[in-house]
Amino acid sequence: MSLTTAELETPVPVVDLDRLARNLDRAAAYATAHQLALRPHIKTHKSPRIGSEQLRRGAIGLTCATPFEAEVMSEVCDDILVAYPPVGGLRAARLAALPETVRLTVALDSLAAVETLAIAAREADRAIGVYVELDLGMHRVGVPVIDDAIALAQAVCARSPLTFEGIAFYPGHVREPVGQQSVKLEELDAALGAALQAFERAGLRPSAVSGGSTPTLWNTHEVTGVTEFRPGTYVYNDRTTAAIGACEWDDCALTVLATVVSTAVPGQAVIDAGTKALGREPMRGTDSADGFGCVLGQPDVVVKSMSEEHGILDLSTTSWRPVVGERVRVIPNHVCIVVHLNDVIAGVRGDAVETSWPVSARGRGYTLPV
Amino acid sequence: MSLTTAELETPVPVVDLDRLARNLDRAAAYATAHQLALRPHIKTHKSPRIGSEQLRRGAIGLTCATPFEAEVMSEVCDDILVAYPPVGGLRAARLAALPETVRLTVALDSLAAVETLAIAAREADRAIGVYVELDLGMHRVGVPVIDDAIALAQAVCARSPLTFEGIAFYPGHVREPVGQQSVKLEELDAALGAALQAFERAGLRPSAVSGGSTPTLWNTHEVTGVTEFRPGTYVYNDRTTAAIGACEWDDCALTVLATVVSTAVPGQAVIDAGTKALGREPMRGTDSADGFGCVLGQPDVVVKSMSEEHGILDLSTTSWRPVVGERVRVIPNHVCIVVHLNDVIAGVRGDAVETSWPVSARGRGYTLPV
Repeated sequence: MSLTTAELETPVPVVDLDRLARNLDRAAAYATAHQLALRPHIKTHKSPRIGSEQLRRGAIGLTCATPFEAEVMSEVCDDILVAYPPVGGLRAARLAALPETVRLTVALDSLAAVETLAIAAREADRAIGVYVELDLGMHRVGVPVIDDAIALAQAVCARSPLTFEGIAFYPGHVREPVGQQSVKLEELDAALGAALQAFERAGLRPSAVSGGSTPTLWNTHEVTGVTEFRPGTYVYNDRTTAAIGACEWDDCALTVLATVVSTAVPGQAVIDAGTKALGREPMRGTDSADGFGCVLGQPDVVVKSMSEEHGILDLSTTSWRPVVGERVRVIPNHVCIVVHLNDVIAGVRGDAVETSWPVSARGRGYTLPV
Repeated sequence: MSLTTAELETPVPVVDLDRLARNLDRAAAYATAHQLALRPHIKTHKSPRIGSEQLRRGAIGLTCATPFEAEVMSEVCDDILVAYPPVGGLRAARLAALPETVRLTVALDSLAAVETLAIAAREADRAIGVYVELDLGMHRVGVPVIDDAIALAQAVCARSPLTFEGIAFYPGHVREPVGQQSVKLEELDAALGAALQAFERAGLRPSAVSGGSTPTLWNTHEVTGVTEFRPGTYVYNDRTTAAIGACEWDDCALTVLATVVSTAVPGQAVIDAGTKALGREPMRGTDSADGFGCVLGQPDVVVKSMSEEHGILDLSTTSWRPVVGERVRVIPNHVCIVVHLNDVIAGVRGDAVETSWPVSARGRGYTLPV
């Protein structure tokens, strides 16, 4: 029985299956061409179904942020990097309790995290690999001073069953349009080069050097020494990714299907996708776009403001006058947040709804004990 | 067995049960004192448990935005207002399918919505009350021209089993600090007065005049003609509500318990509550506060920036230097979004975890049919 998008309740995220496949293929081909290990971050899709598709195309493993994400992905993946500090006994123990069949690596930046993780690893009697996280310019997490990072790696080596496996960094500060990233990429290249030399002098040989984001995806090979990369957003892409040229507009695979619920106030149309469906995420890396999303096929028509269940389309730039009940598809500014806000995704080709899947790793996966 | 907050995984929203009870009591007492009908908006808590507490204290019914919220609240409430345009056959039919024991009222602002709702009401063979929504200055939804609103009310009267029950408006544009709202409230008073006179001249007598928000909660009685009010945020309050003086800081009942996961970058501490736990909501109604939340007991320490799983505490205003593993409680800028991001809430008194409850009406409550 065929179902069309017109029969879906709104707001609902819909994924164009052809675009999704193309996005997955393109990143896999890039990894192969440049002999880079692709270890996608699943924060964007939070779904074993998409994780499986990434692995089937040659990803060496998956990257997660939360213990719950790692648990859910362990259903389909036996090589998981948790790129988030394993701080706190509960978090560390939960990671150490992942199925034994999973090769587990964790990125961290403090001695406190090393010690907690070592205790959890010993109690669970499992080896856990460690990446030492460097701050190479983003100033979020990561050790900023190379000597401190080396000391941390040595602390890892001294705490069996932890093993030092490599270096991680996240180039999240490189958000310029793709053609304008070269200065920051050169700085990154220099900083990473210096770090790798210092590690080598200290007798530490990182077997992996893990970086990469979606905005820098296609330039990952320009940063000398990087062996693996962890883009997340590329599976679906979004308005930000398209605006900075890291994908084409036709590569935006996920849109939020919404209904026009009011045109009573002149100059605008109100859709049923507000902050609880789209998130309140600004555009990044570009000054030339505002609003919180744009209409598919009409990138000049933006969601100019939002309430929780209301998105206000600015009609001042268009002669288009949607009527109450009309449907639109919105390309969100930041797709990872949209996925996190929703429980289920519809998979479409054109207007045909072919399939759907749950956002299995949404939330935290813990039940409070009272 | 006693459980403390130290034993909770983070990030997790925790509600101070004493503060919650006090917030519920205070609004109920205000309603009684001013002979106003309290019909709280459940978007803030999305939980039948809190809805029951509101009804037990004298609320005449509950307000919802989505069909799923109405379905979930129908477990505990037999008088529900859906303050959201019932546009689209699926949405209208789902509302009309609520249990027959529920007295259902819907707010709308278009003839298209009237017609769709009338069809759904006839097919379900149930009476549905209608509030005609007016735009009294917020410019989001609502009919801006009084004569058009009267025509819409007449269209409702002509479409049994719909019945015209009243007028709704939302004073969401009144966000000034509580002492500075009088100009806008006087404008609101005048606009509503003119509308009520025009309705009366047209022979339409609204039995309910429904307004009210949390920022204007304690001044609702100053707007002549209002019979019921629909605050939502007041149950938990948040940083915005406290900053504009609509509550005291000690009335902020919901905080996000978070763990410091990194202090590697000088001048800041990174907690595990980022946009996926706190939402990226700005302060409103005040220019004197930035950031996305502040630390309980240290309102000068704010979450200055965020990634999905990272919140960056700015330590430039404090000599406090948290260590990795330390825990903090964050008062969010906008609590409704925090609740929507989470599946479960912990109820605490001090550090003792007494209870927990699910955010039952989170999400959309539909399963895709493929």
